[in-house]
Amino acid sequence: MKILILNGINLCMTGTREPGKYGTKSLDEINTSLRAWANERGNLELDFFSTNFEGGFVERLYSARGVYDGIVMNAGAWSHYSIGIRDAVAGCGLPIVEVHMTNVFAREEFRHTQLLAPFCVGLISGFADDVYRLGAEALISCLTDKK
Amino acid sequence: MKILILNGINLCMTGTREPGKYGTKSLDEINTSLRAWANERGNLELDFFSTNFEGGFVERLYSARGVYDGIVMNAGAWSHYSIGIRDAVAGCGLPIVEVHMTNVFAREEFRHTQLLAPFCVGLISGFADDVYRLGAEALISCLTDKK
Amino acid sequence: MKILILNGINLCMTGTREPGKYGTKSLDEINTSLRAWANERGNLELDFFSTNFEGGFVERLYSARGVYDGIVMNAGAWSHYSIGIRDAVAGCGLPIVEVHMTNVFAREEFRHTQLLAPFCVGLISGFADDVYRLGAEALISCLTDKK
Amino acid sequence: MKILILNGINLCMTGTREPGKYGTKSLDEINTSLRAWANERGNLELDFFSTNFEGGFVERLYSARGVYDGIVMNAGAWSHYSIGIRDAVAGCGLPIVEVHMTNVFAREEFRHTQLLAPFCVGLISGFADDVYRLGAEALISCLTDKK
Amino acid sequence: MKILILNGINLCMTGTREPGKYGTKSLDEINTSLRAWANERGNLELDFFSTNFEGGFVERLYSARGVYDGIVMNAGAWSHYSIGIRDAVAGCGLPIVEVHMTNVFAREEFRHTQLLAPFCVGLISGFADDVYRLGAEALISCLTDKK
Amino acid sequence: MKILILNGINLCMTGTREPGKYGTKSLDEINTSLRAWANERGNLELDFFSTNFEGGFVERLYSARGVYDGIVMNAGAWSHYSIGIRDAVAGCGLPIVEVHMTNVFAREEFRHTQLLAPFCVGLISGFADDVYRLGAEALISCLTDKK
Amino acid sequence: MKILILNGINLCMTGTREPGKYGTKSLDEINTSLRAWANERGNLELDFFSTNFEGGFVERLYSARGVYDGIVMNAGAWSHYSIGIRDAVAGCGLPIVEVHMTNVFAREEFRHTQLLAPFCVGLISGFADDVYRLGAEALISCLTDKK
Amino acid sequence: MKILILNGINLCMTGTREPGKYGTKSLDEINTSLRAWANERGNLELDFFSTNFEGGFVERLYSARGVYDGIVMNAGAWSHYSIGIRDAVAGCGLPIVEVHMTNVFAREEFRHTQLLAPFCVGLISGFADDVYRLGAEALISCLTDKK
Amino acid sequence: MKILILNGINLCMTGTREPGKYGTKSLDEINTSLRAWANERGNLELDFFSTNFEGGFVERLYSARGVYDGIVMNAGAWSHYSIGIRDAVAGCGLPIVEVHMTNVFAREEFRHTQLLAPFCVGLISGFADDVYRLGAEALISCLTDKK
Amino acid sequence: MKILILNGINLCMTGTREPGKYGTKSLDEINTSLRAWANERGNLELDFFSTNFEGGFVERLYSARGVYDGIVMNAGAWSHYSIGIRDAVAGCGLPIVEVHMTNVFAREEFRHTQLLAPFCVGLISGFADDVYRLGAEALISCLTDKK
Amino acid sequence: MKILILNGINLCMTGTREPGKYGTKSLDEINTSLRAWANERGNLELDFFSTNFEGGFVERLYSARGVYDGIVMNAGAWSHYSIGIRDAVAGCGLPIVEVHMTNVFAREEFRHTQLLAPFCVGLISGFADDVYRLGAEALISCLTDKK
Amino acid sequence: MKILILNGINLCMTGTREPGKYGTKSLDEINTSLRAWANERGNLELDFFSTNFEGGFVERLYSARGVYDGIVMNAGAWSHYSIGIRDAVAGCGLPIVEVHMTNVFAREEFRHTQLLAPFCVGLISGFADDVYRLGAEALISCLTDKK
Repeated sequence: MKILILNGINLCMTGTREPGKYGTKSLDEINTSLRAWANERGNLELDFFSTNFEGGFVERLYSARGVYDGIVMNAGAWSHYSIGIRDAVAGCGLPIVEVHMTNVFAREEFRHTQLLAPFCVGLISGFADDVYRLGAEALISCLTDKK
Repeated sequence: MKILILNGINLCMTGTREPGKYGTKSLDEINTSLRAWANERGNLELDFFSTNFEGGFVERLYSARGVYDGIVMNAGAWSHYSIGIRDAVAGCGLPIVEVHMTNVFAREEFRHTQLLAPFCVGLISGFADDVYRLGAEALISCLTDKK
Repeated sequence: MKILILNGINLCMTGTREPGKYGTKSLDEINTSLRAWANERGNLELDFFSTNFEGGFVERLYSARGVYDGIVMNAGAWSHYSIGIRDAVAGCGLPIVEVHMTNVFAREEFRHTQLLAPFCVGLISGFADDVYRLGAEALISCLTDKK
Repeated sequence: MKILILNGINLCMTGTREPGKYGTKSLDEINTSLRAWANERGNLELDFFSTNFEGGFVERLYSARGVYDGIVMNAGAWSHYSIGIRDAVAGCGLPIVEVHMTNVFAREEFRHTQLLAPFCVGLISGFADDVYRLGAEALISCLTDKK
Repeated sequence: MKILILNGINLCMTGTREPGKYGTKSLDEINTSLRAWANERGNLELDFFSTNFEGGFVERLYSARGVYDGIVMNAGAWSHYSIGIRDAVAGCGLPIVEVHMTNVFAREEFRHTQLLAPFCVGLISGFADDVYRLGAEALISCLTDKK
Repeated sequence: MKILILNGINLCMTGTREPGKYGTKSLDEINTSLRAWANERGNLELDFFSTNFEGGFVERLYSARGVYDGIVMNAGAWSHYSIGIRDAVAGCGLPIVEVHMTNVFAREEFRHTQLLAPFCVGLISGFADDVYRLGAEALISCLTDKK
Repeated sequence: MKILILNGINLCMTGTREPGKYGTKSLDEINTSLRAWANERGNLELDFFSTNFEGGFVERLYSARGVYDGIVMNAGAWSHYSIGIRDAVAGCGLPIVEVHMTNVFAREEFRHTQLLAPFCVGLISGFADDVYRLGAEALISCLTDKK
Repeated sequence: MKILILNGINLCMTGTREPGKYGTKSLDEINTSLRAWANERGNLELDFFSTNFEGGFVERLYSARGVYDGIVMNAGAWSHYSIGIRDAVAGCGLPIVEVHMTNVFAREEFRHTQLLAPFCVGLISGFADDVYRLGAEALISCLTDKK
Repeated sequence: MKILILNGINLCMTGTREPGKYGTKSLDEINTSLRAWANERGNLELDFFSTNFEGGFVERLYSARGVYDGIVMNAGAWSHYSIGIRDAVAGCGLPIVEVHMTNVFAREEFRHTQLLAPFCVGLISGFADDVYRLGAEALISCLTDKK
Repeated sequence: MKILILNGINLCMTGTREPGKYGTKSLDEINTSLRAWANERGNLELDFFSTNFEGGFVERLYSARGVYDGIVMNAGAWSHYSIGIRDAVAGCGLPIVEVHMTNVFAREEFRHTQLLAPFCVGLISGFADDVYRLGAEALISCLTDKK
Repeated sequence: MKILILNGINLCMTGTREPGKYGTKSLDEINTSLRAWANERGNLELDFFSTNFEGGFVERLYSARGVYDGIVMNAGAWSHYSIGIRDAVAGCGLPIVEVHMTNVFAREEFRHTQLLAPFCVGLISGFADDVYRLGAEALISCLTDKK
Repeated sequence: MKILILNGINLCMTGTREPGKYGTKSLDEINTSLRAWANERGNLELDFFSTNFEGGFVERLYSARGVYDGIVMNAGAWSHYSIGIRDAVAGCGLPIVEVHMTNVFAREEFRHTQLLAPFCVGLISGFADDVYRLGAEALISCLTDKK
């Protein structure tokens, strides 16, 4: 099984940006842990991509088709206003699990708007960097059910 | 570790109610699977409680204090309008993971209102009955981090 | 044909509560008249249930399945805010006619919100206690059409 | 007893317009059935009027005064935006029962706005063409109570 | 000076419709008084037109061009929702004074929406049937200033 | 007959403030014309008061009781936000005609909010400084009807 | 191919009404040009109908069935508030292209509400009187694709 | 004089629930102090009832009729969403003083919605557990005035 | 203990203004009763100030610092729109109890907006002129707790 | 005449993305057809540019000045939220025709917001890939009128 | 160059009112510093006026005409609700720079409403008491540009 | 002291884009003047960066950390909708002064939404290109206070 871990705007700065909210681990450290977990689990290949550009994010969603079995996606703040990414998620065709490292429902009103979730298998919000592993498990479980 | 699986309004009917949305497994069958998983995993004790009464739900939240390490809670439709349960969740003091079997963000507008999530560790929405296991894993991970 | 007359919050007090709005007949008197009418009409069996508890109302909706051909339901004020009952009405599977003894559209703004009606065969609002007989006739007419 | 069955905008096309929603009986066929039912019932005279013109509808409401005991009115879409008809209904002085062949609460948001119902005895929504007979029965019941 | 007194929806019924709000004088009686006042005043010719049809109202606004110096217009409820009449008022080119016999600001919220007034010389609301004379005086005053 | 012409915030500057909107006559010049008109008409006494202080305006409304037969009031911008003046107008007891020199409905959205008009005999908006004379005529007409 | 060019409220006045917005050509001149273009193009028959009456517009939509292959419709201001016409457009069954001579999105907020477009093949807004030819071309293209 | 102190959802947990907001005294301790105060004051009998069930709360309101002179009611969060309790308060017939231990206007927006207060003698919000005594004094004052 | 009884806009007219709502006692009579009660109670000094000027009210709030132990404040309609007084209340530093003689929650929607209450110790609404004594008691209770 | 066909976010995927909505032709195939049509028509040069990057889109709008006579622009989802592109469209100075391949008014509410259209010559929405040819014709017609 | 520093409601209390927000310098100290800075700078005369009365503020705006070259205005909370001052600012004719000592956009929602700024040269919000100097510099810069 | 002048979407076109609003100086000319002013002032180093790409803007905000003492930022239209940049501004850690060359509060409603200002030291809006110098002075003043 092959899964893409896709990160969007500002997430490259995890670890140094507002550590009180997002923790002190860098995105690289998070990815390294995830890879270790995947190896230990077996039968699971993870790739990683992160960008601050909406256009790059959209193009990655499309180029993932035919390459991955599904995507664990953290679109950051774009989840709340980018209709362009909404259209790409809707058009991508792959099963996607949306994740957020913080519990967005305990934050500002505008973060409660979820433009992307309606086209995803589900949403997991909270649990700090552990959310990526939970997202991957949820995705694997969906993919296994289908087969 | 001891966790309460707490289900609210209408969830007792899972399996026969709108099976296209909630699947055909009954709540008992779901609980049986969860107990099996917990046993296999080890070091984890699960209790189950389900009610259609707001007052009973509130009282169970309070009586859980000092007995459980945390709660995996599916409050059903109450999540969207019961300020009474909101106050109980806020006052309960235990770590709670909120779960929904459906992806509520792909449903009616009024289901996007999340009254309880701001006082929970996080929210997981979607993934059918697998969401309880994911919620328990997320909760365990939080509880382990704290120690 | 077997029909359940289901009454919700505050309706047990009909006759003494705000008689200017709801008349002076008690719910028992209304039910007695309905039973008399059903006997006269023939080929129609009526049962009656009334509760002030949301949980009890939800459970009665489910237990009616397989027992009745349909329900004439007056959910009282719950019609305007209980998403929990909305889910039960949607999941119940029986044909339901919603009734209100007053013309709710001539009353406060918040009574114009109809959470349950979208899942019912139709809505009848006004006509005092006569609304139960009209609701039963409408339901019988629907059930007869189907056969 | 003499009752006017008054139909508004688009209802002349019933039977050919969106038959999935409004059935395949024409307005003439519906009226013929109603007349047959009235004859069978006895002591009831029905007249019929239908127009697509707001001005004609308003004038018919006024000219009905002193001629009929009451009106069963289906104003179609005007119910949701014509304040002009609202004023005529308010000023007409006759008891009016408002009916809709579809359950408008299960349709678009803007059909939930009820401009006319506040000035009517009550509202019946749903039950296809049977709604006219139910409306007439409700009206007769009101008129009988008053006497 | 030649002025058109233009009345819209429901105003033909003045005198019998809700006399508590609109008084007991018929539109004919009101017009007769206005004509008497105009004769007494001298140098003023009044014409009268009243319709319940939006299309007829719009066409009268256009046909008034080149014939009258201005219009005293009571569009009734159309003032609050007919964008079609708004466009006709905007396109008519004649100075128009809008009048209402009741103080619409002391009535329902939706009567506070004034679609036509932005394209009129001014608005006079209240003062029962005297409002037509006040409107004519205001219009004459405007027309005199221009010359 | 004795009438108070009461002007509120900013109106003391009429003539020099935004002459494109309010004309070039000063409030003194307007008042002088009004007095001339009153003398010519006979049987009419006018007093004038103008203030930029909400408290002074409120107190003048109260002190007018028992002294004047009615008030022609231009409250300026206070009409749109001063609930304090609303309460004073409601409590004053005298018949009041509200006037505005501009057609406020052709201006900003917030000027469409009319807090005071519900407690007045009527509202006249537009017609430049001529609006005071129209207001006085409307008031006299009301007062004469009552007698 | 046979197409109806259908015009609604106020459009009969094109050419003299607000020429800065709608140009100086009359509706007759526009229609004459369209007929010339249709003749030149060949294989295309155009009919024209225009009314200021909502009821007449609705009836023309229905009577067009079985006579025309499609409709180019400019409903004028009705597009923004007439739910009655919305129902007729939805029930008409013919392919309709909605057109506006002005770019309504550069005008008042309430003109951005499009009640009819959801039931049309598409919408073209702007391009002055040329919009009718563009609408006809778009409609022909759709009709040709279907065959 | 006989008064019922009626507490709703979550209030049974006062003293342990969010002590920073609601203090550390339990509901029992609060009630004991109240009883002591009543004894000291003389001529005053207090009863206490507390429930987390909406249905139980509604039924207590009705059963209080004929037994108590009035009610001091803290409905907790229900004040903000339970239209069912609103109807019971409206129909109960006893004078009720609504109290909240916290200043709800200094808290979340949704706590500013007061569904019950319109049918109460008054509302007192803030002052911690002292609010019950203040409420009782206010109620006694009302009851004494009536006599 | 020294307390200021501070009254705002329109309250000087209590007794003659809308007596159906505010009673027939003048503010002076109310104040005299309060002073009598204070003397009887002992250990309490009351001062009184009333103004219709927002600026005067603000300045009195500031000049009360260092002179009084707290304030019982009835700001009248200013409570609902004067952000200026809101800032003064927030900045004043003294404990303030806000009172209204009527139950503002049973009145117009805009009186439900409470701009000042967030910065007060609490709010008491209703209970006619007795509200001042209740406010004073509530304030004394707070002040005593602090010592 | 020289025209730029400018495509925005997600449009590069046309043909494979949601073919039920956008058809199965790729953007290259659409462009090839357009070029063929332009050649056949004569006197028309078309250039093509497509990007998923907001910044690239904005810069292309500016660099088009002085090179093209006008633009046929499909900004995709950006039309509904990118104020940045709105400013670029407003500042670009070239005549632009906005097109959408789907009828956006028959889709989600948020697609009814048109940020760019107010600064365009007009908008064409619907008609699948044929919309580009219609847009070009409309643009040519405008450009020809100007000359 | 002659500039008026105009302060509104509550600003007289700067230094003692909420020093955490507004600093500990009094308005006099701020003004003294400003005067010193003006002297040092040369060619600049400053006058100071401060009032808590809306009427006084309005009159000062008018009396400043012909005396000052421009105004640095801190209207305090009036900025958010006083339409009366809005009209005075709009009618004053002098260039005005609006300043706030705090960053109002980081504060309550209602402070984001800017009624006055549309009629000012610009707005500066934040920077504590330094904002007056910045405002004066901004104003001088504007005035110099004009010359 | 080292400051970054950071410009966002569309600002590269200053001087040629809508010169009536933004002036005729190019961004290069503005920057040159700023550098001259900085040199003259002494003890101040300025760097300049401008981009139309949201991703590039975000990355520049992060890379500025540890290099500059603060930022003068004009994010253009992004200020009103880019939550992504909001998160970057919040996470950047440097003191930022937000500037706009136009007075955005005198423009369209959607430009009044300030997503970034809550995380800045302050906002300056208006004053054309002089706003950059004012912003720099404000920033220097803050930085000096801190030291």
